Amino acid sequence: MSTSALPSQSRDFPAWYGEVVRRAGLAENSAVRGAMVIKPYGYAIWETIQRELDDRIKATGHENVYFPLLVPASVLAQEGKLIEGFAPEVALVTEAGGKKLDEPLAVRPTSEALIWSTYARWVQSYRDLPLLYNQWANVVRWELRPRLFLRTTEFLWQEGHTAHETEQEAVAEALTILHDVYADTIENVLAIPVVRGRKSESERFPGAVDTYTLEALMRDGKALQTATSHYLGQGFPRAFGVRYTGRDGREHHPYATSWGATTRLVGGVVMAHGDDRGLRLPPRVAPHQVVIVPIVRDDDRAEVLRLAAAVADELRTADVRVRLDDRSEVRPGFKFNEWELKGVPLRIELGSRDLATGAVTVSRRDTGEKQQIPLARVTAAVAELLSDVQASLLESARAELERRTLRAPGGYNELIEYLRDAVGFVAAPWCGREECEAQVKDDSSATIRCLPLDEQQPERGDCVCCGRSAATTAMWAQAY
Amino acid sequence: MSTSALPSQSRDFPAWYGEVVRRAGLAENSAVRGAMVIKPYGYAIWETIQRELDDRIKATGHENVYFPLLVPASVLAQEGKLIEGFAPEVALVTEAGGKKLDEPLAVRPTSEALIWSTYARWVQSYRDLPLLYNQWANVVRWELRPRLFLRTTEFLWQEGHTAHETEQEAVAEALTILHDVYADTIENVLAIPVVRGRKSESERFPGAVDTYTLEALMRDGKALQTATSHYLGQGFPRAFGVRYTGRDGREHHPYATSWGATTRLVGGVVMAHGDDRGLRLPPRVAPHQVVIVPIVRDDDRAEVLRLAAAVADELRTADVRVRLDDRSEVRPGFKFNEWELKGVPLRIELGSRDLATGAVTVSRRDTGEKQQIPLARVTAAVAELLSDVQASLLESARAELERRTLRAPGGYNELIEYLRDAVGFVAAPWCGREECEAQVKDDSSATIRCLPLDEQQPERGDCVCCGRSAATTAMWAQAY
Repeated sequence: MSTSALPSQSRDFPAWYGEVVRRAGLAENSAVRGAMVIKPYGYAIWETIQRELDDRIKATGHENVYFPLLVPASVLAQEGKLIEGFAPEVALVTEAGGKKLDEPLAVRPTSEALIWSTYARWVQSYRDLPLLYNQWANVVRWELRPRLFLRTTEFLWQEGHTAHETEQEAVAEALTILHDVYADTIENVLAIPVVRGRKSESERFPGAVDTYTLEALMRDGKALQTATSHYLGQGFPRAFGVRYTGRDGREHHPYATSWGATTRLVGGVVMAHGDDRGLRLPPRVAPHQVVIVPIVRDDDRAEVLRLAAAVADELRTADVRVRLDDRSEVRPGFKFNEWELKGVPLRIELGSRDLATGAVTVSRRDTGEKQQIPLARVTAAVAELLSDVQASLLESARAELERRTLRAPGGYNELIEYLRDAVGFVAAPWCGREECEAQVKDDSSATIRCLPLDEQQPERGDCVCCGRSAATTAMWAQAY
Repeated sequence: MSTSALPSQSRDFPAWYGEVVRRAGLAENSAVRGAMVIKPYGYAIWETIQRELDDRIKATGHENVYFPLLVPASVLAQEGKLIEGFAPEVALVTEAGGKKLDEPLAVRPTSEALIWSTYARWVQSYRDLPLLYNQWANVVRWELRPRLFLRTTEFLWQEGHTAHETEQEAVAEALTILHDVYADTIENVLAIPVVRGRKSESERFPGAVDTYTLEALMRDGKALQTATSHYLGQGFPRAFGVRYTGRDGREHHPYATSWGATTRLVGGVVMAHGDDRGLRLPPRVAPHQVVIVPIVRDDDRAEVLRLAAAVADELRTADVRVRLDDRSEVRPGFKFNEWELKGVPLRIELGSRDLATGAVTVSRRDTGEKQQIPLARVTAAVAELLSDVQASLLESARAELERRTLRAPGGYNELIEYLRDAVGFVAAPWCGREECEAQVKDDSSATIRCLPLDEQQPERGDCVCCGRSAATTAMWAQAY
């Protein structure tokens, strides 16, 4: 690990991000451009996210399945908007088993096509509905400007694909996933506050009637789309010939949803909470919630290590994820820096003075605060502190989101200036026409991140761009 | 679900297997030849296997990582034996992002090449060793004769890749994985007894010095290789230029292992335990350990369902995976058949007579035995029965393995006849020469499954094939 300081966030956020991801051991580039190697520390974070999402996906009645990686090009092309949207990013297998294939196989960029062509066999009667399936998988999208976790040629995700009898049921499903699975995980586990909204038409998933999204604010003022849930209407069922006999004895197409969250969330955790010293991990997602650093002298080494191990055991018994850093080849100061860089929420220092006084020093990564805790109270204090760190990170990110959101800008110029400087979100009335959306993008390179679900009524009557009567409130920002 | 009888195992085992897999809802073929769709019930079994393996992989000190799917062809070709072994099965991406690629990318058939080319950057000093990493991933191998779960173009697996300072440590690692991760899971969770052994040279993994294997016997007398663990020596480290400065200050190559277990294990569970009525799932891997079938009349429906739900809740509280089948559109007899086909270990029938007597009928799927259990004792009785079913399935599979293993055949003719008829394993002395191995294969189409670890000393002095002095005992069988 390099011991030099990280680039400053405020001076060069992209350089800071790249260095933190690399030095904290989250991920690195591979021999294939744009495809990353996820290292143990980064993968441990992803595993926690997976577990949390998976528990909620199952709790809301879904089952996991697995569909093939390779999709015949003709199947992928069967739904017009999907292929139009993904064609520029598809990777094609043209040879296999030593022979040229009769038909190229696409490496799945998403699985709607293969899944709906299969659902055609699974759905005959309304009794077969709903289908509530999810899969954990890798997908490949040929990215021109790859960036670790945020935009990679291959990424890991879950993708849910459901089929319903009624439109109402399908829309409710898409929203249940948005709120109860994604927002709950992202806010309460990753401590990242999100704006819940729907996408404007130009930003919708190819083939979707409505794309619901959770937009978060990173510490450089740019937005990150953290997860999306799509109400797909009947387009895919129609394109793939999925029909069922309804309660009325007649043939119908089911209504569809799909929804996904990816390894991008790991990048979100880095950029939503990290500071100039490195990561600041929310305890619920931290691979190590507590690191114990013994401070030893030649004459008390055995005794200090024994105590450190006892504290570690006690915490483990209380289901705290503890790392005891008993390396002898590096000094405590080096360890402090390393675990700060890696964002471990709490550090316990423990030396001979503590042996004498019966108390240890506990430091919070998020605030830097230190306190002396009597040994007898360590486990209880750690539990309280962890829950406090978790809440504080969310609270301070929420305050930051509020502070950086400009509501009702004075006029078009203020909107553009704010967006150009990437200060944060602007919430402003919009007429709903693509011309205005494109105009703002041309002038600022910012996009409409979403039309917030809880503010469908415009705050003022007139579109911030054209002055026509506004149809909705839009949230604009620069985005990843 | 079809209500006709399954094909008989003894008359047509392949037809039986295909029908059970399909009708029990484990998997089905997809639009891409040889690639399967894993359906919810099959995937739930795989998830349990994953969790059990993953817990043991972590308990033995390994961490999870993720390496890319696509490997530059030149990287894959860097270790001669690997590419020679896998070239005929590789799928190649030649176009991506709308352009022909300068260099084709192989869809990983296994990840040694990419991982060792990365380890070259990760290992500098003996302090960086050991590297103990595992990944959960999909791989693609172009199979000519695909078969659901057993041999599919794409399959899911975990692959571990470790680097060590010494040969001794690397061999110990390969054996720890074989015994503590794989054999423990396969015998104690899947209830499939295995023969632990090493492969003969002709059956080794390409590039391995030693391939350790766990061979199980299916109910048709054929062997299934359930998991393998390879001691790779220094071949991969050399080929990929992985060097480190040792304790002696000099440069060394580390010693390598790799090891994998796949979705094939689901097929193993089917073929090791299933009977003519369908699956018989060991409780530890069963998605539903108990199914409750209420027997209702028009006048007691509400009351019976209330009691059924109460029993289900009580069992769930005791961490039993329960399914309450309260469908009204099908009759109890239909449900019995369906859950027998799906191999649920215990069935509880519950009707008005039971309301009156305060006892329910519990049936075991493995033996068909039924007993009356007082309602007050249901949870305790279910726990005991589940543990008994688990033990019985292992025990009876073990007895079958013993019964079907011919030790020390009378001569070459008996060996060949036994193998041709696929009765089971033959354990016989072997000189160790490839000529004899090839001769037996020519005459019987059976192969040496392994040289058992616990019987390295031949039982008789002479090779069963050539009569020369034997070097070892070999286990032959027809194999999947």
